Amino acid sequence: MAMDDQLSSTSRLEAFSDGVIAVIITIMVLELKVPAQRGVAGLLSVVPTLVVYFISFSFTAIYWVNHHHLVHRIEQSDQRVLYANLGFLFCLSLLPFFTSYVLEKENDSFSIALYAASMVITGFSFLLLRLAIERRMRVAGTFHPGDAAIQRKHLLSLGLYGLAIPLAYYHPSVALADIALVTVVWIVPTAGTKPCDDDNR
Amino acid sequence: MAMDDQLSSTSRLEAFSDGVIAVIITIMVLELKVPAQRGVAGLLSVVPTLVVYFISFSFTAIYWVNHHHLVHRIEQSDQRVLYANLGFLFCLSLLPFFTSYVLEKENDSFSIALYAASMVITGFSFLLLRLAIERRMRVAGTFHPGDAAIQRKHLLSLGLYGLAIPLAYYHPSVALADIALVTVVWIVPTAGTKPCDDDNR
Amino acid sequence: MAMDDQLSSTSRLEAFSDGVIAVIITIMVLELKVPAQRGVAGLLSVVPTLVVYFISFSFTAIYWVNHHHLVHRIEQSDQRVLYANLGFLFCLSLLPFFTSYVLEKENDSFSIALYAASMVITGFSFLLLRLAIERRMRVAGTFHPGDAAIQRKHLLSLGLYGLAIPLAYYHPSVALADIALVTVVWIVPTAGTKPCDDDNR
Amino acid sequence: MAMDDQLSSTSRLEAFSDGVIAVIITIMVLELKVPAQRGVAGLLSVVPTLVVYFISFSFTAIYWVNHHHLVHRIEQSDQRVLYANLGFLFCLSLLPFFTSYVLEKENDSFSIALYAASMVITGFSFLLLRLAIERRMRVAGTFHPGDAAIQRKHLLSLGLYGLAIPLAYYHPSVALADIALVTVVWIVPTAGTKPCDDDNR
Repeated sequence: MAMDDQLSSTSRLEAFSDGVIAVIITIMVLELKVPAQRGVAGLLSVVPTLVVYFISFSFTAIYWVNHHHLVHRIEQSDQRVLYANLGFLFCLSLLPFFTSYVLEKENDSFSIALYAASMVITGFSFLLLRLAIERRMRVAGTFHPGDAAIQRKHLLSLGLYGLAIPLAYYHPSVALADIALVTVVWIVPTAGTKPCDDDNR
Repeated sequence: MAMDDQLSSTSRLEAFSDGVIAVIITIMVLELKVPAQRGVAGLLSVVPTLVVYFISFSFTAIYWVNHHHLVHRIEQSDQRVLYANLGFLFCLSLLPFFTSYVLEKENDSFSIALYAASMVITGFSFLLLRLAIERRMRVAGTFHPGDAAIQRKHLLSLGLYGLAIPLAYYHPSVALADIALVTVVWIVPTAGTKPCDDDNR
Repeated sequence: MAMDDQLSSTSRLEAFSDGVIAVIITIMVLELKVPAQRGVAGLLSVVPTLVVYFISFSFTAIYWVNHHHLVHRIEQSDQRVLYANLGFLFCLSLLPFFTSYVLEKENDSFSIALYAASMVITGFSFLLLRLAIERRMRVAGTFHPGDAAIQRKHLLSLGLYGLAIPLAYYHPSVALADIALVTVVWIVPTAGTKPCDDDNR
Repeated sequence: MAMDDQLSSTSRLEAFSDGVIAVIITIMVLELKVPAQRGVAGLLSVVPTLVVYFISFSFTAIYWVNHHHLVHRIEQSDQRVLYANLGFLFCLSLLPFFTSYVLEKENDSFSIALYAASMVITGFSFLLLRLAIERRMRVAGTFHPGDAAIQRKHLLSLGLYGLAIPLAYYHPSVALADIALVTVVWIVPTAGTKPCDDDNR
């Protein structure tokens, strides 16, 4: 049924992606387990868990912001954009699983390497979505090549997430810090790119 | 209260369906269990689980794409469309249950047959939705009979999902491969229909 | 912050309600447990569970349809409508809990009486929402008194759900059949009201 | 990718926030456990649980209402609003965790203090969102200083939630009553502010 209607407005794509991302970001909280111990000792024992949850939440949130801005650039989606978007959502939907992997294995090397690998794969699937959308923009004549800095930053983050994979075998906590750092670089909007006027107002 | 207002815009039907499908597609990730074993052996032990999750995700995603295109064809829904849509969502909402059935029974014949049967029933409920929407299009005068190829493809997939039911008793993994194949045929947009110009650009 | 902005468009109220109802209707599927037994015997053992899930799904779906039509009648909501709507969503959000109550207690008298009681309370909270919206329609001058038949049907269903509470103590399965029947009466659009032209086309 | 597009419509921010809040408010119902005991005794044993669920639901619902009204005041969001909103959603997303903390620890002092603390932090993150939005309104020239009463009420609630933290150590149930009271003050729209004309109609 999908084949006879090549172009469609992006509004339902946005609504569906928002729904999926909203569920992904929220069900991760179900992985947080109340500690058996009472009092402050119990709370302290869940702090590493909260840190991992915070990284996963931030990672998902940053992709939502980027998704928001990327899809905003086109007004109609084609089959390629539709399927690239579903591929991206599939990769992102595995994050809660790999988050609970890290939590249940108590931050061991292998699970942190997996966690970093899942972030690299998600980043790669987002790159495919970006290419599908740029192709659509070229067809629609709305492409402008001014986002070289952003693309450089995107590739750099993929590289740094990728670096966490071997790093996890030697220093799991350094690998986790690397992942957290890359996520923070994305949060601070102007980090790694030229400062924008708006932020100096 | 529903009876005195026979026609209504499809926008809330779309929003609600998007919400339900977004939750269905995402909560399936909760079925993925972190393996007890550490390291690569543990990861390998969840690969079959990830394959089943991927099939279920793709199946749901494909129905979302088709739902998107089908509902797009009408501007107003009547009672029949509303209830056919709820029937379709009900059938689809059982997919996470039958997915975890397959996972917990470790791909035995009966659970794969059930899984295939639930896909046939969902396909059938989508056919009812399609008929309700075509009836609506005829009333509104917007029906055009150009989608014979799509309808043939839809019926063919139902037949091939159906074939997986008896097949599961003899060769569970062949049945699963059959289900995966049919799902992939839907993903590759032009497979089984004439190639579209847009894809050759 | 809510107080200085008395009127607002119903679009976010609809979007939020759709989101909440979509999650409610879908997370109930998490209550379905894969049976320990293999084969047909295992499947048969979950049939009562599937029946209760079907009733809860239909109940929620019907309220969504009614909510859809009711909120559609006004263009702006006031505080009263906003809070009546949240009250209704709270009552409806308890349905997954009372559904799993019935399932875990294996359809005993008390849990079916509770299940029926939660439906009566949800119906009552919907009546409050209906009153808040009718008050809003009177203020906006769009109220028309033509839905007496619907209101009669609504009160009748509340009565019949209420009847299931004492009935559950003597015949749990008859009480469940009563609940299922009332739900079906709402699904068949013209049952209990005059036939509409649209359905005879 | 987010940096080259400083301003964007608030519609997707609203849609995403609605989705996240809808999931947060609904998954808390999964924390409600069916009691082991049958009959009225079993139901009575879950009453404290239902009370805590009701408080958490109301708390989230009130923030949704306030979020609704606050975001409605601007037409475009900038980076600051986007990230302040994500920070608020992160804090709110921890509520289901701290709710189940209270439930599993059976309302002990420490867990109620944590619960109150998480409400204070959420309130503080909402204040940051409010400041980001007011900054945006000043830039767009739509700021009006008439909401001093609301801001006073907001700060007062934060203070009263904060009061519950030490209180929990001496009288856990009084602390819980304090939290419930503050929540109710927000529900009754005119409590603590001048009566509005609309409510006297």
